[in-house]
Amino acid sequence: MNRQELVHLIRERKSYLCIGLDTDIHKIPKHLLSHPDPIFAFNKAIIDATKDLCVAYKINTAFYECQGIRGWESLQRTVEYIPKDIFTIADAKRGDIGNTSTYYAKTFFETYGFDSVTVAPYMGRDSVEPFLGFSEKWAIVLGLTSNAGAQDFQLQKTGDEYLYEKVLKTTAAWGTPENMMFVVGATQADSVAAIRQLVPDHFFLVPGVGAQGGSLQAITEKGMNKDVGLLVNASRAVIYAGNDENFAEDARNAALQYQQEMAGYL
Amino acid sequence: MNRQELVHLIRERKSYLCIGLDTDIHKIPKHLLSHPDPIFAFNKAIIDATKDLCVAYKINTAFYECQGIRGWESLQRTVEYIPKDIFTIADAKRGDIGNTSTYYAKTFFETYGFDSVTVAPYMGRDSVEPFLGFSEKWAIVLGLTSNAGAQDFQLQKTGDEYLYEKVLKTTAAWGTPENMMFVVGATQADSVAAIRQLVPDHFFLVPGVGAQGGSLQAITEKGMNKDVGLLVNASRAVIYAGNDENFAEDARNAALQYQQEMAGYL
Repeated sequence: MNRQELVHLIRERKSYLCIGLDTDIHKIPKHLLSHPDPIFAFNKAIIDATKDLCVAYKINTAFYECQGIRGWESLQRTVEYIPKDIFTIADAKRGDIGNTSTYYAKTFFETYGFDSVTVAPYMGRDSVEPFLGFSEKWAIVLGLTSNAGAQDFQLQKTGDEYLYEKVLKTTAAWGTPENMMFVVGATQADSVAAIRQLVPDHFFLVPGVGAQGGSLQAITEKGMNKDVGLLVNASRAVIYAGNDENFAEDARNAALQYQQEMAGYL
Repeated sequence: MNRQELVHLIRERKSYLCIGLDTDIHKIPKHLLSHPDPIFAFNKAIIDATKDLCVAYKINTAFYECQGIRGWESLQRTVEYIPKDIFTIADAKRGDIGNTSTYYAKTFFETYGFDSVTVAPYMGRDSVEPFLGFSEKWAIVLGLTSNAGAQDFQLQKTGDEYLYEKVLKTTAAWGTPENMMFVVGATQADSVAAIRQLVPDHFFLVPGVGAQGGSLQAITEKGMNKDVGLLVNASRAVIYAGNDENFAEDARNAALQYQQEMAGYL
């Protein structure tokens, strides 16, 4: 999906909600466990119930990988089931030397057909660039993440700027706002206005709203740009809103609350 | 595998060679393509031909992931086929917020049974610690990598030290030399003596010998400690030493050259 299509989708739906399919076999409603693929059964119900309210689904690959080959089957079924007009994110945090990163890019863009993949920047330019050579595909580079550990390295000073600022400025020059986004945690709202000044045009993928405690209002006020420029992700707060036979309806209601709040800001 | 067993294996075999199974369906000998699982057939032949010369096998997961579910099947068959007395490394470069890193740790330590996994440090403490809570399992944290992109962030100054030095010192305090190693590229030999002073006891996983041009002699002189403390990886230089029906014998000869040079240093 290209940027124009994504922006159009956001305007049309009055939503910049991304729903994170962090689907954990131990947390889904018990009645699904008799299904031959319980994780896909859960995801299918969540997608059916929310697909008109969000503009993106984010699949956190770790939750699937830990199930072994069966998990990858669930992942593949899920990404194939997501309607083609919705943006898909492989939240895989990959990154390696150039020839290896090329294989990761092929994995998520070609083998599974995702629109985007999250990328860890520590190994530098040749680890990121292979993700930028695919038409209408996106690298979503870790900038300032939502977790406590962001303090350990990202918020250390390199010269007169924070490491994450150096990462944003440096990596932004390797791609364009048409093929690169940044992960900016909602729990870092105080920094978002400054980050938006550094990279005015790029989309931000914003995790940390909901279970991690970030504020949708704060991140919107500080992070929105003329093309909206935000994909705000909620995972647990939506998909585990309920835990019984009505879980999909509960998820829809949780997603609807986010969407309505977003419509108010648009 | 615990540290004592690893050191014993190195002394017994007079080898600290790790062979990287970066197995690419497009590079293996053509006669294997009729096998139902050509990647496993190639790996099996390489393992059979080299298992008395090395102490570790490193599986670069990207090469398997890009083949989709079939690739994970090849990976699983391969790790199960590696003799249990040889150290196994999932070169997967994972790292995410705490609860997600826990799933990655389970993936590689429990689902597939690897001894170790490579970990990207950018997201900080809670992204690394989940890999440290498994008995006789190891996190191998990226320190100073072998690629050109190491210059972009790892070799930037944070205060009066390089970022990679801060990463080494900070992450070393989260674990012990019994459950943590560091990736230190062989192409960075000039820095290895200083790195060894920073973390005197830890093992280093050293990629970059062979196709990437690093020197085994230089890395050994500067990096070895009283327990050897090195796993030097060669991938392409061993596994693609030949490309016809004799490829396994060619790989053995390439591995033997490394092992004999190592025996001379031990």
